[in-house]
Amino acid sequence: MITQTDPIRPTDDEARALARRLISGARFGALGVIDPDSGFPAVTRIALGSGPEGGLWTLVSGLSAHSRALRTDPRVGLLVGEPGAKGDPLTHPRLSLRAEAQPLNRDDPRHGAARARWLADHPKSKLYIDLGDFFFVEFRLLSGALNGGFGRAFRLDAGDLTCQCAP
Amino acid sequence: MITQTDPIRPTDDEARALARRLISGARFGALGVIDPDSGFPAVTRIALGSGPEGGLWTLVSGLSAHSRALRTDPRVGLLVGEPGAKGDPLTHPRLSLRAEAQPLNRDDPRHGAARARWLADHPKSKLYIDLGDFFFVEFRLLSGALNGGFGRAFRLDAGDLTCQCAP
Repeated sequence: MITQTDPIRPTDDEARALARRLISGARFGALGVIDPDSGFPAVTRIALGSGPEGGLWTLVSGLSAHSRALRTDPRVGLLVGEPGAKGDPLTHPRLSLRAEAQPLNRDDPRHGAARARWLADHPKSKLYIDLGDFFFVEFRLLSGALNGGFGRAFRLDAGDLTCQCAP
Repeated sequence: MITQTDPIRPTDDEARALARRLISGARFGALGVIDPDSGFPAVTRIALGSGPEGGLWTLVSGLSAHSRALRTDPRVGLLVGEPGAKGDPLTHPRLSLRAEAQPLNRDDPRHGAARARWLADHPKSKLYIDLGDFFFVEFRLLSGALNGGFGRAFRLDAGDLTCQCAP
């Protein structure tokens, strides 16, 4: 039974499909990490895209504060589902993800495929993708909180979030 | 001296002005909190606006996960500076703020002025502003990391961030 103090609706296929669309369509988002010096959460904007077999990946500079933080503590939060220029941004669907950041070393056998996939989706990244400090991070998605607009909140587990879409 | 491993530029008045514009112009943003159960950072979209004497405030539902988190641990991160529909979102200026969340009780003498200011800036909030679980939070800004686009990074302290703009 849904009461006033339990605003979460039962997860259904529509919620799962919306969550997967928000993940597969994300080209950027907000990353939350724990700052290793202060313990404060820190939120930055990062590029997002798919890996060679789908999923949710980013390409970050090793000089950035967030890359140092996620190498220290792989627990991250991600917000995807960016509002457009029109309408109320707080009624636009968005998904808060809990994830574990898994950096990819350059000598990883998947690096070439990840690079090719990223370049196809982010052609402007050719300006920096091969700079020495840049590296890929795969996000292992653990759970999500979907807000489909006022009063439309759902919780999703890792299975709900797994995108079946081909690369 | 700025080297390749120190991408931070010296803070100047242009950077301070840009940071203050991003703060005073923010109508929504990404909030990072520490989830009290898991310790993971969690990122959600929240409404933002000014308080009675300026500053950066939000209005949140007490039923939300982030409101429970910030009442447990007031250390938060905020990302402001939302990209528009055009251009590369990762070259759009944005500001990552470190802040302490200070919830305002309804019996606080400032509540009336905060409510009036919020309604003036967010007229649609009249639908829920008086619901029993909603409350204001003032963010005490501690420091900021400004990214004005590729290669334009600055660090700002609390003094740099203080908005002088009248309500």
